[in-house]
Amino acid sequence: MKVEIINTGTELLLGRVLNTHQQWLCRRLSDQGYRIERQVCVPDTAGAIREAVQDALRRADLVITTGGLGPTSDDLTRELIAELLGRKLVFNETVRAEIRKFFQLRNRPQPARTEVQALVPEGATVLHNSVGTAPGLAMQVPAGKTESWLIMLPGPPRELQPMFLQHALPLIQKVLPVREMIVCKTFRTSGIGESMVEEKIAKPLEHLVRQGLEVGYCARTGEVDVRFLSSGTGAAERVVEAEQLLHALIGDYVFGRDDERLEDVVVRLLTERKQTLAIAESCTGGLIAHRITNVPGASVALLADLVTYSNAAKQSFLGVRETTLAEHGAVSEAVAREMAIGARERTGADYAISTTGIAGPAGGTEAKPVGTVFVGIASKEEEVRSKKFFNPYDRETFKMVTSQQALELLRRRILGLNG
Amino acid sequence: MKVEIINTGTELLLGRVLNTHQQWLCRRLSDQGYRIERQVCVPDTAGAIREAVQDALRRADLVITTGGLGPTSDDLTRELIAELLGRKLVFNETVRAEIRKFFQLRNRPQPARTEVQALVPEGATVLHNSVGTAPGLAMQVPAGKTESWLIMLPGPPRELQPMFLQHALPLIQKVLPVREMIVCKTFRTSGIGESMVEEKIAKPLEHLVRQGLEVGYCARTGEVDVRFLSSGTGAAERVVEAEQLLHALIGDYVFGRDDERLEDVVVRLLTERKQTLAIAESCTGGLIAHRITNVPGASVALLADLVTYSNAAKQSFLGVRETTLAEHGAVSEAVAREMAIGARERTGADYAISTTGIAGPAGGTEAKPVGTVFVGIASKEEEVRSKKFFNPYDRETFKMVTSQQALELLRRRILGLNG
Repeated sequence: MKVEIINTGTELLLGRVLNTHQQWLCRRLSDQGYRIERQVCVPDTAGAIREAVQDALRRADLVITTGGLGPTSDDLTRELIAELLGRKLVFNETVRAEIRKFFQLRNRPQPARTEVQALVPEGATVLHNSVGTAPGLAMQVPAGKTESWLIMLPGPPRELQPMFLQHALPLIQKVLPVREMIVCKTFRTSGIGESMVEEKIAKPLEHLVRQGLEVGYCARTGEVDVRFLSSGTGAAERVVEAEQLLHALIGDYVFGRDDERLEDVVVRLLTERKQTLAIAESCTGGLIAHRITNVPGASVALLADLVTYSNAAKQSFLGVRETTLAEHGAVSEAVAREMAIGARERTGADYAISTTGIAGPAGGTEAKPVGTVFVGIASKEEEVRSKKFFNPYDRETFKMVTSQQALELLRRRILGLNG
Repeated sequence: MKVEIINTGTELLLGRVLNTHQQWLCRRLSDQGYRIERQVCVPDTAGAIREAVQDALRRADLVITTGGLGPTSDDLTRELIAELLGRKLVFNETVRAEIRKFFQLRNRPQPARTEVQALVPEGATVLHNSVGTAPGLAMQVPAGKTESWLIMLPGPPRELQPMFLQHALPLIQKVLPVREMIVCKTFRTSGIGESMVEEKIAKPLEHLVRQGLEVGYCARTGEVDVRFLSSGTGAAERVVEAEQLLHALIGDYVFGRDDERLEDVVVRLLTERKQTLAIAESCTGGLIAHRITNVPGASVALLADLVTYSNAAKQSFLGVRETTLAEHGAVSEAVAREMAIGARERTGADYAISTTGIAGPAGGTEAKPVGTVFVGIASKEEEVRSKKFFNPYDRETFKMVTSQQALELLRRRILGLNG
């Protein structure tokens, strides 16, 4: 079964708005076993929309469009598609009544043009919009020798998402049932490069690939995702075997699966152990605490983060010694160690992590170029450690990669792993 | 001139990764007067990539692909395109040396497969990758009666972005110059709602709209963008006049233009005045410092951020009194005031801002529901102030909106504006 998505919107192609529909729809559909073959984005112009819809209908069993169903003059999708398929647009009285009710309920005057949203191509099914006025539309249309399904959804995410889950997806599952489920698992690794991951796992997985396992790699900032995907007879078993092999080969580097972030894992591990964390950040400038505090319930584990950008702050809030700063410089193994020790002692936390480095673009020297960074860790039972990294990237990537290295160091220490 | 973008990546169509390339490339190109006609996303399979590239080359003068240039077995773009165009792949010794140096510098073993990235189709120009190993490629290819340009960029955003700005865009501007510029300026406002902005400016701008000015509004988290766009004769003058009207009508709320972020403005204002900042964050959990430290040169202005998540940390690092916490609770006007005072006094900064609130999803009460937040500000000459806001959003949006309110309060105080 072939599924394609068409996003319409001039603002998307001017780069003024981020297209989040693609990921959202693809994720919901692939979780139910549908694979999306192609996604296209075109501006709000008649020619572009017409061509995209015709092309897609020729290839796919299911075409989903987003946008262009509203009341303004650049909302063209409904009319164009009716014209393209030679269907008359007729007023749907239920929809018209719903639109009127929408404005009455909100005590707002109803602009006359809003009623165009009650126009429905003959033979189309109306998909109710629970938060806005533009209904979705679904219809079966001739495509070559067979028929395809065309589903039109509104552009605003907060209207599209409930409509898709409540009305469009159940319809799709009824009229185009999946024969074979896809089994897809993503494993997230940190501390190992993309080609090294492949070098370690590709050969041992070969027999599963011959049986139909797809292996994908995705390098992200400070991590590498490994994806196992399979369908048909034995799919689940193949993915389970691949997972077991992955864990045997590079299990130490696998911190989570699917949507689990490294900060989720760290907060979960600390919470399960009833342990607490303090952070001392210099070059990462608050990012580690920001990531940790994005996790609901983080307040149980995180006591404090001392973002000590100036040397004076490192001394007064963390007790870093003036002599250490003078002898080794702020970006040094010794300062990273004293920052971690200070954060732990002054908060009473079980663990403390620290970062000090040169984010750039200025501030580098020959001995310590931009990208040089030291990450420290202190805990009750084990020795204080400081590890040097070299992250010669732009400022924001530098911060992200360094925060990932610090959180990974913490994860490994909590679990008693090497590194 | 027709420009199309092809994003390759199975992970994009499985909905596992958000496609940010579309917006980023469209924005950079449209800022230079190029309008993108179509964007397509296809999986990492030979047939899909081949078909997408052939279709696009038939229509467009410039086709940009992203992804599939890396070292792993699912990176197919380079080979497929060479095959499709009948070009031999030859090793480029400069690229090969750069790849080897990349691993040497990082003291990491070099997996053998990484050298496939030094393969270049005959006649192609190499676009240097300053942060990774996969170079980009540019080539002129026959397309119907004329020639089109094909530019291939790597998938990771942190590799694609500098490569595009440093190498691809200058090449595009040289070989495919724009004839008629679009004038487009975006003004960024904070502290005023979208419909209020429109109510204040729409009528006074009417005569310019009749002359061909396009006005766009975009509500983002904690801010509203106003976009003026025009082309043809008098475009620049129309946009300048619109800008003057905007400043006369709601200038106090306009904090920056185009890509200038509120944190950029705050760091610039402090640096110009040789003034310093300290931060005391509770509910925003490090995000304010993270935003400030994303700005190059922030270390001149920012002394420290005390992320005091626990009550004990609020007392020991900021001197918040136990009685204040007991009488008013951690989320209170009084605690926000004492946090700001403590941060300023203990660092000697010119300004201090503080946040304390309930980010949720848990922790709300009837008197202080989730979303309640107090933002404090202290400075040398003016009184300490604490302002209450209500931001009943999901956790990450709550943090973003609150950080925006704190930075806007600081901007207004530095400039001596009300609010």
